[in-house]
Amino acid sequence: MSWEENVRKVVPYVPGEQPKIDNLIKINTNENPYPPSPKVQKALSEYSSDDFRKYPDPTCAELVDALATVYSRKSSEIFVGVGSDDVLATAFLTFFNSDKPILFPDITYSFYDVWANVYRIPFKQMPLRADFSIDINDYMGENGGVVIANPNAPTGLELSTEFVEKIIEANRDVVVIVDEAYVDFGGKSVVDLIDKYDNLLVVRTFSKSRSLAGLRIGYAIGCEKLIKYMLDVKYSINSYTMNMPSLKLGAIAAYDKEYFELTTKKVIETREWTKKELKDLGFSFADSHTNFIFAKYNGEMSRDEIASKLRERKIIVRCFNGDKVKDYMRISIGTDEEMQTVIKELKDILK
Amino acid sequence: MSWEENVRKVVPYVPGEQPKIDNLIKINTNENPYPPSPKVQKALSEYSSDDFRKYPDPTCAELVDALATVYSRKSSEIFVGVGSDDVLATAFLTFFNSDKPILFPDITYSFYDVWANVYRIPFKQMPLRADFSIDINDYMGENGGVVIANPNAPTGLELSTEFVEKIIEANRDVVVIVDEAYVDFGGKSVVDLIDKYDNLLVVRTFSKSRSLAGLRIGYAIGCEKLIKYMLDVKYSINSYTMNMPSLKLGAIAAYDKEYFELTTKKVIETREWTKKELKDLGFSFADSHTNFIFAKYNGEMSRDEIASKLRERKIIVRCFNGDKVKDYMRISIGTDEEMQTVIKELKDILK
Repeated sequence: MSWEENVRKVVPYVPGEQPKIDNLIKINTNENPYPPSPKVQKALSEYSSDDFRKYPDPTCAELVDALATVYSRKSSEIFVGVGSDDVLATAFLTFFNSDKPILFPDITYSFYDVWANVYRIPFKQMPLRADFSIDINDYMGENGGVVIANPNAPTGLELSTEFVEKIIEANRDVVVIVDEAYVDFGGKSVVDLIDKYDNLLVVRTFSKSRSLAGLRIGYAIGCEKLIKYMLDVKYSINSYTMNMPSLKLGAIAAYDKEYFELTTKKVIETREWTKKELKDLGFSFADSHTNFIFAKYNGEMSRDEIASKLRERKIIVRCFNGDKVKDYMRISIGTDEEMQTVIKELKDILK
Repeated sequence: MSWEENVRKVVPYVPGEQPKIDNLIKINTNENPYPPSPKVQKALSEYSSDDFRKYPDPTCAELVDALATVYSRKSSEIFVGVGSDDVLATAFLTFFNSDKPILFPDITYSFYDVWANVYRIPFKQMPLRADFSIDINDYMGENGGVVIANPNAPTGLELSTEFVEKIIEANRDVVVIVDEAYVDFGGKSVVDLIDKYDNLLVVRTFSKSRSLAGLRIGYAIGCEKLIKYMLDVKYSINSYTMNMPSLKLGAIAAYDKEYFELTTKKVIETREWTKKELKDLGFSFADSHTNFIFAKYNGEMSRDEIASKLRERKIIVRCFNGDKVKDYMRISIGTDEEMQTVIKELKDILK
């Protein structure tokens, strides 16, 4: 017998590529085109590394308290992790231990089935309607938990608060995770519902709207009891997940409301301009409340050909496989200048 | 039914406390008393936060390549994670999927049984001998894997390379993890054995000898195949675990061999001085090859009384519970000045 027989074998998630090419317009991983708050740079420049010899605060109080203040919650209602991937994976491990399958859409964040597989959680993928909308009736039957990205990725489509609440209400016996990674770009959060439903966990990230993907910061908001269970699991795997720069700089970014509003507003404006231009070029897409547009070209040229021609011009978008999405490309929103270049090149490619 | 029935309930690990008291002599969590390499401070001062808007490199090439260079290994033989806790937890999840119990000593790093519990891995704790040494015959039977801290914590005792190799050799059908968190303080590494044994995984950390506990950096060295399996699992949970400051500053610290040797040598010297003083005061302990001493007082006063009196004098040591260790306190090695104060206060307490 070989040790290989006991290996947990998985088909790993393939992250969007991070190529090192100069002057690249990188609109493939939904990063924010703007740098983080200038206050982050200021703190970084004044940072002393002397403290690095010590362990960080395992309770992450600096960051947790900042988020509690900013979102008017109690610190005990907040969990932080190494990006929302860490937060979501910890939630899956903590809450999804039933023999019944957990439910999520067939087209959604592509990590959900990966986590279910690695943690041996049974799951069922509920087909979206042809227009990429969620049929909430699909989430009313017996299940081991529900996870919904809202707005959904990569479609960009939002489910109304009323419908999200119906799903939470119909599933009081399991945990419902609402992944709000993109909510800050004009979406509507259901975070206030945590006062009404102890089975609701709302997950968010600093990687998009806070321009801090490079620091890896995610968080969850839920009732005290939910958060306590997650902390128990976290402390059983790695007590010190968040390093000192994440805790300090994350807190500073959280407090800078003004810059946050300025940059998210800017991304929204650029998105709306891009939508108009894409429509004029013959693309169609569901109405996006995120920092990306999931678009399909209605003319002759295939998606892959367009993407490949964009690539030749140093523009990278994200293409997913699968029958329902094979004609779509996900275009992250860059700066005005970048998007003007993208539209100009698309015009040239499609002419 | 309530959602609580499906919660993964665990008894979490309790990390050593991180109190915020001025002028505290904090020798309870084996932190390095010296700040990280001055080159880390220099890079930090010049750091631009602009890049933080982007995701870090999921392959962690900057840090992996630095470690490969420093330890003359191939980059494909190195795995990095958020502290050695992340690395070890990932290794447990990846390699320990047998129905047979994994084996580790009854007195060792207190996270091993916590990980086994959270991941539902059967385990058996093999009793150390009365002198805290490992009987290698305990690790020769059928098992699902072996994990050994060498030097062991909290005892500080080292198992000879010859004996470690015997354990690896007797267990070719499972993975043997050798946790070398403390090896840089005069211990002997078995890392060269990975060329001979594809079932050996050596795990290390930047938290002790590199003075970077606050950045959370751990790593594993093993054959390419082992590392590939770990990467698959890592990419299935969180593709971007290491944030940008960890990757950049970790690489810089790894390359600064001179500072590393200077500070580890200093800690070893201070440890040897402290051993002598503790012996004179009536303490006994196994010979430590780490940055701590696991000591028992042979006089009248109980351990808890000594620890509590030290605490009154703003000195915190670590005390573990359990029959075999209830008379011992773990004393991390601080600066010369700190250890002189500790010895002075102990003299006063015990007089």
